[in-house]
Amino acid sequence: MAPKTSPDRLIYMPLGGAGEIGMNAYIYGYGPKDRERLILVDMGVAFPDMDSSPGVDLILPDISWLVDRLDRLDAIFITHGHEDHIGALPHLWPLLKKPVYARPFTAALGRGKMEEAGLSRDAIRVVGPMTPIEVGPFSVQYVPVSHSIPESAALCIDTPAGRIIHSGDFKLDPNPVVGEPWDDKVFEALAKERPIKALMCDSTNVFSKSPGRSESSIGGNLSELIKNASGMMVATTFASNVARLKTLAEAGKAAGRSVCFLGRAMRKMITAGEESGILQRFPKSVTVEEAVDIPRGNLMLIVTGSQGERRAASAQLARGKYLGMELREGDTFLFSSRTIPGNERDIGRVVNQLSEKGVEIVDESGGLYHVSGHANRPDLEHVHRLLLPDMVIPMHGEHRHLREHAKIATDAGIQSVVATNGIMIDLTGDVPGVCGYFQMGRVYLDGTALVGAMDGVIRDRIRMALNGHVTVTMIVDEDGSALGEPWADMMGLPPTGKGGRDFVETLEGDLAEFVGSAGRKILADDDKLEEALKRVVRQVAMEEIGKKPEVTIVISRLSAE
Amino acid sequence: MAPKTSPDRLIYMPLGGAGEIGMNAYIYGYGPKDRERLILVDMGVAFPDMDSSPGVDLILPDISWLVDRLDRLDAIFITHGHEDHIGALPHLWPLLKKPVYARPFTAALGRGKMEEAGLSRDAIRVVGPMTPIEVGPFSVQYVPVSHSIPESAALCIDTPAGRIIHSGDFKLDPNPVVGEPWDDKVFEALAKERPIKALMCDSTNVFSKSPGRSESSIGGNLSELIKNASGMMVATTFASNVARLKTLAEAGKAAGRSVCFLGRAMRKMITAGEESGILQRFPKSVTVEEAVDIPRGNLMLIVTGSQGERRAASAQLARGKYLGMELREGDTFLFSSRTIPGNERDIGRVVNQLSEKGVEIVDESGGLYHVSGHANRPDLEHVHRLLLPDMVIPMHGEHRHLREHAKIATDAGIQSVVATNGIMIDLTGDVPGVCGYFQMGRVYLDGTALVGAMDGVIRDRIRMALNGHVTVTMIVDEDGSALGEPWADMMGLPPTGKGGRDFVETLEGDLAEFVGSAGRKILADDDKLEEALKRVVRQVAMEEIGKKPEVTIVISRLSAE
Repeated sequence: MAPKTSPDRLIYMPLGGAGEIGMNAYIYGYGPKDRERLILVDMGVAFPDMDSSPGVDLILPDISWLVDRLDRLDAIFITHGHEDHIGALPHLWPLLKKPVYARPFTAALGRGKMEEAGLSRDAIRVVGPMTPIEVGPFSVQYVPVSHSIPESAALCIDTPAGRIIHSGDFKLDPNPVVGEPWDDKVFEALAKERPIKALMCDSTNVFSKSPGRSESSIGGNLSELIKNASGMMVATTFASNVARLKTLAEAGKAAGRSVCFLGRAMRKMITAGEESGILQRFPKSVTVEEAVDIPRGNLMLIVTGSQGERRAASAQLARGKYLGMELREGDTFLFSSRTIPGNERDIGRVVNQLSEKGVEIVDESGGLYHVSGHANRPDLEHVHRLLLPDMVIPMHGEHRHLREHAKIATDAGIQSVVATNGIMIDLTGDVPGVCGYFQMGRVYLDGTALVGAMDGVIRDRIRMALNGHVTVTMIVDEDGSALGEPWADMMGLPPTGKGGRDFVETLEGDLAEFVGSAGRKILADDDKLEEALKRVVRQVAMEEIGKKPEVTIVISRLSAE
Repeated sequence: MAPKTSPDRLIYMPLGGAGEIGMNAYIYGYGPKDRERLILVDMGVAFPDMDSSPGVDLILPDISWLVDRLDRLDAIFITHGHEDHIGALPHLWPLLKKPVYARPFTAALGRGKMEEAGLSRDAIRVVGPMTPIEVGPFSVQYVPVSHSIPESAALCIDTPAGRIIHSGDFKLDPNPVVGEPWDDKVFEALAKERPIKALMCDSTNVFSKSPGRSESSIGGNLSELIKNASGMMVATTFASNVARLKTLAEAGKAAGRSVCFLGRAMRKMITAGEESGILQRFPKSVTVEEAVDIPRGNLMLIVTGSQGERRAASAQLARGKYLGMELREGDTFLFSSRTIPGNERDIGRVVNQLSEKGVEIVDESGGLYHVSGHANRPDLEHVHRLLLPDMVIPMHGEHRHLREHAKIATDAGIQSVVATNGIMIDLTGDVPGVCGYFQMGRVYLDGTALVGAMDGVIRDRIRMALNGHVTVTMIVDEDGSALGEPWADMMGLPPTGKGGRDFVETLEGDLAEFVGSAGRKILADDDKLEEALKRVVRQVAMEEIGKKPEVTIVISRLSAE
């Protein structure tokens, strides 16, 4: 172990995933202060919503801190193939261009993403479990854990200052249906071999008080449900929950039904699994073309869209026909998934549309048809005891999760600290200490452009959504006087104001009146004229329709040529 | 009872509240077909959200069907004072101008609303319980029910074709803290006096399988929690849940704390209660000015904002200081409320901000600190049995609730039908029959304007939020050729396109190129020119930033004067 007098230090800083669920990206560093060699663990995305990020395609972590220190970054490690851990790779890797390590299934998904983005597959290096990778002062091993996607892993990160376990996403599942089971012995051995300095640990389910249940515990319930269903059986879950896809498919088979996967994300995941050889014992499925000819009572669809996403298979089936399939009275639709907070309305829409068709709707029914892929509170406590780390640094959670998780650790006599995105922790000594704070933003993938969350672009979109938009154009001629009257065009505003008056007409009347009485000084000054016209628009709008719209003023000046 | 050969019929049609939770408005009619005399029960609002109604202030039922038949409308009855039953009154009453009936507390709230809107208080007539009001062919009695606001009532509507019970919102609470208890005997007597032809019944909690619990059952839990809290105690609930305000205030008093109400809506509700004499035995509270000087351990705040509303007291306290009050480590914040689907993210924001302050957060804890104001499934079954109506028509619910409620009724051998907004039901015979369908919209209160949900105004705002907005202006001179080059202004779009190019510059370059090569025929035709310029904008934007913005084209033609 490095002596305490060493000028080298071991640091940790989340760029994403600490203070939110999603967008995971964590930095570790070792070396002299501000010259530490760095590694990055995970490059995940978060998903946009209409409230705070309308029109945005994906939310990415802000890696500008890392980009400013690119010469110090040695490698990127991806723990598993879920979007909140790997999704940012094709969008941010071009800014980093460092080797990426992953296990075969994760690598297959990552390479697919790189290829789609026109990037090189070879950036991703395939690694085996429990095989140390040496990068700079770090030696990193992938330690298999159970989760809901194959080949999930924790990382065992050895540094001169001590051994770190970075849990990744995990649960304690002795029989996880896909991927390796959780194995206490492996972690015990790691802790015995070298004391654990710090455990960076998944906090998602810290508020779930009973021990987590195995994926294998719901198969029987599902078979039972499917056997008792009369018409077509449809089940939805996350495409990336490969374990559930298998559990559902096996339950369908057990109930004597042919299984058909619907939805692009689902087919992609299964293809990656089959190509990487990880899903060899996956139940055989039929294509949708074959499915159309199978009697409803003998068919089970497994479809995307468990969160009510408008373009996914679930929503399309709820609205009407989709790829020749159509739901009707007597069919059963199962949500084998949890509702992610914020998606209630979208899911509700799908449920009500299905209800209108007379479809029986079954939700996860308090755990009968769904289990989480994350460790619950007693499981976290078990892992703390198993590893007996000097410190627990909670990650993968909102502030309330991190705080609760830290409380569990300190209650058990383990050092802990709440470190949200941008808080740098010095792990070198016996006590984790905050040693820096960097303001972290978020980056939006908007179409094909990357936009900073604080750049004002999305703020303007939100304002137009709330307030509508008015364009005013006017022409000023060669001698500095108004040519004709200003025009107003509006978008997203009521056409009629007070007393049934046409809003645009009223507005143009008042603008014309203003321009008619405005002095040459104002007409000569673009800034002043723009400000004055905006003021007129806002005032008239407030009077007529009770709103203050966003305004674009276009002043065209004819030059004396 | 009217003989079946009578040409008169008894009809029912929801305008709002059937197919959604909120915006209640139900029509009853009796008389010759298409000449029925009409009454309206409730005029509620629903609340907007960013996904489907950004910038909208309130969602109101579409009463155009009624406005077209105004000569047939005799009266409006409000069952109770919750916003989803009375909120539309000041906005829609001017379109109807008919007498409004309500019990005193409801009338006090309604009169306050009318006054604020500059309308006459006298439109609202105060009625007592169990006192028949004769309007046209109807005789209507207010029958007290327990709910979470004082003087909630069902309506007993007598018509020549039979007696109807319109449940309003209700629960079976023998001790509802405010308002009258539920009384089986009253309803039994009504059914004995005259058989119940139809029960129009609240469906909100049809999926809750255990019997509802009394408001009085949580007082002890609350006192216990508050006694054990060390710092300041803060509790939030709906301001309109007057029962809970009282339960919370009494629990605070019992724990030896002074109670202070924070938030405009809360003070308003309490004032209405005190003025109408309904809250005479309400615990004494202190003002916020007094509260500032009370030691934290002796103080309890009851605040608005249980749904995370940004401007409410909860959110303000979570962000920082509010009216001199500030939360800190060791304080306790209780959500004595349920999360309305769709509000999870807003509530999560408040919770995480409180967590950052070190405040202990307590949620409703599975019913320990909250009970619903609506009847659960067994309670509904009890009421069906009590009244033994010929038919049950479910109301106050989304489609799935109505369908489930109808199933309960038919399973018990009672006729039922799912009637969503705009479906007219003929109740005259033994079986409820659909006798009409009118496409119902929703109306948005947007600022001070009323906008139809399908008018395209809000659709345009949503599009601008998703796609951003570009304004292109160009001037065509007297002889029909372009004067200078087109200008582009953008809002809510990334400034930089592919390869770091300035997006607006690229766009203006391509627009200039197009205009330069465009024939005089296109330049002469506003529609064609506009369409062509739009096409250029969309194409360039797609190439440069991967999005298709909304576009406003302004063509100014200089006339040869």
